[in-house]
Amino acid sequence: MDTGVNAYSPTARSKVKRLHERGHYDRDTVHAILDAAMMAHIAYVIDGQPYVTPTAFWRDGDVLYWHGSSASRMLRTQSAGIPVCVTVTHLDGLVLARSGFHHSINYRSVMAFGKARKVEDLVEKERELNRFVDRIYPGRNATMRGIEAQELKATTLLAMEIEEASAKIRTGPPKDDEPDYALDVWAGVIPIAQVIGEAVPDPLLKAGVQWPEHLKVFSDGRRFDAVMTEHAERY
Amino acid sequence: MDTGVNAYSPTARSKVKRLHERGHYDRDTVHAILDAAMMAHIAYVIDGQPYVTPTAFWRDGDVLYWHGSSASRMLRTQSAGIPVCVTVTHLDGLVLARSGFHHSINYRSVMAFGKARKVEDLVEKERELNRFVDRIYPGRNATMRGIEAQELKATTLLAMEIEEASAKIRTGPPKDDEPDYALDVWAGVIPIAQVIGEAVPDPLLKAGVQWPEHLKVFSDGRRFDAVMTEHAERY
Repeated sequence: MDTGVNAYSPTARSKVKRLHERGHYDRDTVHAILDAAMMAHIAYVIDGQPYVTPTAFWRDGDVLYWHGSSASRMLRTQSAGIPVCVTVTHLDGLVLARSGFHHSINYRSVMAFGKARKVEDLVEKERELNRFVDRIYPGRNATMRGIEAQELKATTLLAMEIEEASAKIRTGPPKDDEPDYALDVWAGVIPIAQVIGEAVPDPLLKAGVQWPEHLKVFSDGRRFDAVMTEHAERY
Repeated sequence: MDTGVNAYSPTARSKVKRLHERGHYDRDTVHAILDAAMMAHIAYVIDGQPYVTPTAFWRDGDVLYWHGSSASRMLRTQSAGIPVCVTVTHLDGLVLARSGFHHSINYRSVMAFGKARKVEDLVEKERELNRFVDRIYPGRNATMRGIEAQELKATTLLAMEIEEASAKIRTGPPKDDEPDYALDVWAGVIPIAQVIGEAVPDPLLKAGVQWPEHLKVFSDGRRFDAVMTEHAERY
């Protein structure tokens, strides 16, 4: 467990208690898991009732951003500065043990805590919305028209400085009870990954428009987390 | 929007407000999205702070189950009967529009609300834990030893009757502003799916143990959601 200078400082809120050897607090590990993903699950509370909503997000340093319609109840609620929890999960494999009890899952996950604020500054807002597109599809903004004023107005952008965060990772083969290793039961790992499929052009695509250079990285069969990581490293 | 006899009755809590044409409340749609998944994100509140934890889950009728160590803080907190929100998300594709504003995501998601209870009845507990294994790997329990008494004790099983639930689905090509269809910008969908990789036997696998019949469905390149759906239909 690295809780050195470049690590988040865990409190009771973020400290990994169960199977604490799976817990990590260093920024490199936390950021790598965040940067390999496009989707987060964001939890917030309204009148004591918890909600968790899947949302695309992106990171700029220690700040996480997400956005949506200015009419969104979720964003309106969150922008009041209430505490939120942003969780990112990669399912990496099914772990088959020799007993039901020791079956497990290989995964990488991050829980990040903070309070969201609404980004009102139009320069920051436009810059971050452009970053969102170029972070997933580097070079794409240059091929499109810019954001229009009414689009900027219709979009709410939230920012959350990470107050604390923890990562939890499981990798590798099953761990069985010693006597069970003698059983005639298949054990091992079945990998799972988010994989890119063959692109489907819009039926209304203008005649003559080709699959562009900046999208070639999204090739059939590639891992999406690898592409996302590659693009994050360009930033 | 089907809110007929076999539908969940949405209140303010679960009603899809934004882009309400994407909202569904009928049990068939909600259950199909749940059954295609193994992982959920579960939100709960401790002292006003929201948490969201990725957890494997399974469904039996209108009841969702999840489990973990009896030492888990999350499970101990949830078993007090507090409100929880269980969200399941499938990322199905990246939707590339002709403007940044209209970029989107194809997805299927469910938000289910209820209160968790701890399953104390040992018969229900053992039956559901066995269902969990056989639901993912049909036929596997028959190849393994049974659950031992101390394993049952070391496991906490939670059950949540779905009080209300809503599904949200986006499919299909981008929708652009009319004038933008004339632009020379590639638009369409890049599909994403969770795909099964090549199985990795445990280095400690007993000599002579073969890849068994009941796992052959987990073949390299298959979609994990399709396998999960197939297995749910057997139940």
